[in-house]
Amino acid sequence: MMKIKVKKKILAKNEDFAAANQKFFKKKNILCINMISSPGSGKTTILEKTAKALKNKINIAVIEGDLYTKLDAERIRATGLEAVQIETKGACHLTAEQITNSLHKFDTDNLDIIVIENIGNLVCPSDFDLGETVRVVVLSVAEGDDKCKKYPNSFAQADVLLINKTDLARYLDFNVKMVRKDVLKLNKDLKIFEISAKTTAGMEKWFKWLKKAIR
Amino acid sequence: MMKIKVKKKILAKNEDFAAANQKFFKKKNILCINMISSPGSGKTTILEKTAKALKNKINIAVIEGDLYTKLDAERIRATGLEAVQIETKGACHLTAEQITNSLHKFDTDNLDIIVIENIGNLVCPSDFDLGETVRVVVLSVAEGDDKCKKYPNSFAQADVLLINKTDLARYLDFNVKMVRKDVLKLNKDLKIFEISAKTTAGMEKWFKWLKKAIR
Repeated sequence: MMKIKVKKKILAKNEDFAAANQKFFKKKNILCINMISSPGSGKTTILEKTAKALKNKINIAVIEGDLYTKLDAERIRATGLEAVQIETKGACHLTAEQITNSLHKFDTDNLDIIVIENIGNLVCPSDFDLGETVRVVVLSVAEGDDKCKKYPNSFAQADVLLINKTDLARYLDFNVKMVRKDVLKLNKDLKIFEISAKTTAGMEKWFKWLKKAIR
Repeated sequence: MMKIKVKKKILAKNEDFAAANQKFFKKKNILCINMISSPGSGKTTILEKTAKALKNKINIAVIEGDLYTKLDAERIRATGLEAVQIETKGACHLTAEQITNSLHKFDTDNLDIIVIENIGNLVCPSDFDLGETVRVVVLSVAEGDDKCKKYPNSFAQADVLLINKTDLARYLDFNVKMVRKDVLKLNKDLKIFEISAKTTAGMEKWFKWLKKAIR
């Protein structure tokens, strides 16, 4: 019982910061994206390729969440984007408060998009609203086609699903039709893009969606 | 502060059950394996192939942990092994108490190995000792070669690392030498096997290790 009470209290505190973040993004006309996935589904590579394609047209900044290391922020900075690294020192998700405390590090008057790359974890981050405008879940075809059945919350609460690493699909038994059917049953409004961040196949549609979303 | 106190209390309670489980496994001469990995790294397929190779020589049973669904227990039962499914209804790890409560469902006088397939999550399960004899972490080459740097706890606390999906390695930039160096820096006694559960390449050494471990 005590565990449940504390979790409720933590979530309530998180909601307050999330609401403040949401208000801030609206006021500044910033599209904030909360990216959630398992470890190694390709979030950082997707961001690298998105940065490369759009950075001359759109002002993008990135907040990187990791348990340890600054590796991902370094990868993003190498593309020319600004990036702030949050190291959670073992904690399994980002909180809205951590986002609030990171925002002042950017020139937010001149940003169109802030992407938050959450901790690689398909379970815990889905419980924590960060005040984002849209939530994007990434699923690599290498993870298997049963993941939306087994981890439904992350898929049910997302606005966009990026099915990544489609360049590997020919070597795997990944039934993309079944995945589409399963996730649309959970979440009928989910927008789905099949992409390979490695080869950039299919990413044009995702870029178009992003450009339209910031208007 | 309250969060930290509650976490300490939860972990202390978990330790009591873990100690009882450990004592039970020792008394019954059962090798208990706690398998930890990201979603989709191939834990269930590894177990299917291990069951197929060893079930006539060794008595194995499986405890399956999932947020939702009984899919994995059904896959294990199809190989002829006994399996118990624990559905955590969204919780991100198994607890030692859940294991204690599952053990009576098996004929433990006639078992050599109990494998616990933990929730697909490379963060939270590593905090919870289940009383296991050995901890096995699985890393798929499709997840990338930076995972032991970014999620060190799971690797530092394991006895065995199974690097899985090596059949895909030729299509990926996965530096296995670097991974071996990185994980041995974290954990010098870690036993590492490179396998493909799909093709069974490399699994013979893992089977040998298992057979030796139960003696």
